Amino acid sequence: MAKAPILTPQAEDFPRWYQDLINKAELADNGPVRGTMVIRPYAYGLWERMQSEMDARIKKTGTQNAYFPLFIPQSYLTKEAEHVEGFAPELAVVTHGGGKELDEPVVVRPTSETIINEYFSKWVQSHRDLPLLINQWANVVRWELRPRLFLRTTEFLWQEGHTAHATFEDARDFAALIHQDVYGDFMRNILAIDTIPGRKTVKERFAGAINTLTHEAMMGDGKALQMCTSHELGQNFAKAFNTTYLKGEGEREFVWQTSWGSTTRMVGALIMSHGDDSGLRVPPRLAAVQAVVLAIKGDEAVLAKVREIGAQLEAAGVRVVVDDRTDTPFGRRAVDWELKGVPVRIEVGPRDLENGTAMLVRRIAGGKEPVSVDALAALVPGILEEDQALLLQQTRERRLARTVDVTSIEEAVEAAATGFARISWAELGPEGEAKLASEGVTVRCLVAEDGSVPAEDDQPGNVAIVARAY
Amino acid sequence: MAKAPILTPQAEDFPRWYQDLINKAELADNGPVRGTMVIRPYAYGLWERMQSEMDARIKKTGTQNAYFPLFIPQSYLTKEAEHVEGFAPELAVVTHGGGKELDEPVVVRPTSETIINEYFSKWVQSHRDLPLLINQWANVVRWELRPRLFLRTTEFLWQEGHTAHATFEDARDFAALIHQDVYGDFMRNILAIDTIPGRKTVKERFAGAINTLTHEAMMGDGKALQMCTSHELGQNFAKAFNTTYLKGEGEREFVWQTSWGSTTRMVGALIMSHGDDSGLRVPPRLAAVQAVVLAIKGDEAVLAKVREIGAQLEAAGVRVVVDDRTDTPFGRRAVDWELKGVPVRIEVGPRDLENGTAMLVRRIAGGKEPVSVDALAALVPGILEEDQALLLQQTRERRLARTVDVTSIEEAVEAAATGFARISWAELGPEGEAKLASEGVTVRCLVAEDGSVPAEDDQPGNVAIVARAY
Ligand SMILES: [Zn+2]
Ligand SMILES: [Zn+2]
Repeated sequence: MAKAPILTPQAEDFPRWYQDLINKAELADNGPVRGTMVIRPYAYGLWERMQSEMDARIKKTGTQNAYFPLFIPQSYLTKEAEHVEGFAPELAVVTHGGGKELDEPVVVRPTSETIINEYFSKWVQSHRDLPLLINQWANVVRWELRPRLFLRTTEFLWQEGHTAHATFEDARDFAALIHQDVYGDFMRNILAIDTIPGRKTVKERFAGAINTLTHEAMMGDGKALQMCTSHELGQNFAKAFNTTYLKGEGEREFVWQTSWGSTTRMVGALIMSHGDDSGLRVPPRLAAVQAVVLAIKGDEAVLAKVREIGAQLEAAGVRVVVDDRTDTPFGRRAVDWELKGVPVRIEVGPRDLENGTAMLVRRIAGGKEPVSVDALAALVPGILEEDQALLLQQTRERRLARTVDVTSIEEAVEAAATGFARISWAELGPEGEAKLASEGVTVRCLVAEDGSVPAEDDQPGNVAIVARAY
Repeated sequence: MAKAPILTPQAEDFPRWYQDLINKAELADNGPVRGTMVIRPYAYGLWERMQSEMDARIKKTGTQNAYFPLFIPQSYLTKEAEHVEGFAPELAVVTHGGGKELDEPVVVRPTSETIINEYFSKWVQSHRDLPLLINQWANVVRWELRPRLFLRTTEFLWQEGHTAHATFEDARDFAALIHQDVYGDFMRNILAIDTIPGRKTVKERFAGAINTLTHEAMMGDGKALQMCTSHELGQNFAKAFNTTYLKGEGEREFVWQTSWGSTTRMVGALIMSHGDDSGLRVPPRLAAVQAVVLAIKGDEAVLAKVREIGAQLEAAGVRVVVDDRTDTPFGRRAVDWELKGVPVRIEVGPRDLENGTAMLVRRIAGGKEPVSVDALAALVPGILEEDQALLLQQTRERRLARTVDVTSIEEAVEAAATGFARISWAELGPEGEAKLASEGVTVRCLVAEDGSVPAEDDQPGNVAIVARAY
């Protein structure tokens, strides 16, 4: 049965498909102030699940949550020279409070390194206070000239971790631990998104960091998206805020620090990694709703059956919703669940009752087939695990298929029109990087020959991953 | 063994005791911008547990979480006349963004009725879209001239619920449901704080509401604290933002709305309800740490034993921490756990090992006694439930002991020096309320003769609860 497409097909216009999907699946709206965003319940539910999975991994590292103020005195930002240069153009500034002009304007936090260091310098005295491992879940503001829902918004939600350590090595290892065991594990095992873990070039580093680790993913259109970053800050902020600890007999040493963040941008990455022309596809482990049981018609017997199936699935550990809103046409509801990407649909009508079956529709692997109702509870958990693995595999296969090894800047630019290019960093270097930038192509990260994260930019054999990026 | 008090005694100076406790238990610091607050990990952990318990109750009502922007165009605030009058003096205003002066200044949300109604008016079309039940966890800003940590801060964290309904009755019933089943249940069963559920007078109502429900609690010094509020907004915001639904054939009707909130102020209420001269006392059901097992010395045998006890308690469902930081003196650690109000302490030293016992110290009921190690896992869960009940009972007994029935304004003012007064609302009325206000005493709420929440201010027999308040 042919029908008019609900979304602009991806192949026709990927950005428009993205916007269509966000509208039709009721994920978000533009806010009234330029670049701000209303996160609607279904998308916020995805973010809540991301938060809960990330938070558990963060806590496992010994990090504790806290909360620092939204408002930062403007003077704090200027204490670390590169930091203020990086953020000044994006700041929102409060000049009036309580009906009066403020003596000193305050900025709405674009990130919290400065204000957190102000307190770390009070809290850290002896080596016993280290490591100090803090995370916060918060909103931040960076004025966006070309906003795009979830991907670049003036206000976004995120977690930002901030830690202080006794030595360079401790800080380096902790930044790497977060990069691997928190972010890497979460992306792979929950978001089902294949990423390239790597190291940012000097040009792409966080303002004030000595090293930035990243996970770069390939979206459905072949462009790159930076999923999260984990920074080594060295002693830059410690020196700006005089954060020291007593090392031995009377000797004070500046602490070594890290910061690391991931944002609501991951919702955009989820859409562009797994979405297709019918809508979103949510990885089962992330999904707040893993299966929906739909009553096709409002017969008492059908309603009783969908509730029974719902109860069985719930007992089998499946996060299930029963859709018995039969005053809304079945077709409309089916399309809506498809748009929202719920992994498994189980549809029950009067005819199914006679046969003792239900229609099992798989959103991720595709396909539909009648299944004996008695078999569902045993079947669905396995399907969900299969589909989780399939999504990860699909993102990995896409990346491999659309990545080419190149040896010149021209080839790199050409490859970046449809995917990623790999080029020797020794050959490309900062000069080549500048040339790529003039073509709108960036070095997403450096990886070592064996695929690991290099300890230094100029480690022999380093490969630059080059792409257009969101 | 007499020792110098760690905190200013409550009886000597209650506000100073409060401030001392917040410092010594490392709950919060003042932020750099006037009235802002840094919530330190232990206090943030209390807030996280409050969030999780509240969120579960909120979701049980069918309400979904979402997120609306921090920045609200100034013009939105002016759409509802009483609302802007109430909030204008407290606003923080952003005038510059991205390095430029903004065309229209934006306010940092003091509450979100206006911006949420802007979207409700788009999302609600037919009666099928109702009820629309939304909650958000967010930060808000209200410029504070006399800030106090947790109680009145320029920025605070809260949840704000916003709902739209087809009829006056639906909205009224939903505001009451939140008041009872979310807030009332949470305060009583988790915070262990006895409250008076009541109705605010016209003078004390939320700016833009037609009715405000409240829970009022008595703090340790006899003053009142408003724990949370649940408002009926009538059609005021619906008319200002043209939020209507299709009622029958072509007939559009304005929706009826509610909003309701509770904030980090509850952390302050927790401190002032249950704290004593030794520190905080955390209700076991709220506590992230219900029991701590302390190694008095660093002997291998002692360390092995505390870990064993920790594992046993964990297996018994107790949220337990093992404190084996024996490089810090035992006395200092014991005082710290006492300050932080962890309900149960289990102390193990070399001599205890010989006897097969541990010292069980109860922070809430008080007292310490040696207990056979083998009995601990069976004993502690019961102690925690006992202590939970005891805290609630203590707040209730304090309220009853410090509440008096009065018949004149003079008596009411006198009673408010040490607690609550009850006075007939028919006799007091708005004029008496104004007189009380000039003495710094307010009507906290109205309650019906039988203790229930009155449906109207002027219901015969209504009693005004009168007090000084935080
Ligand atoms: Zn001015
Ligand atoms: Zn200007």
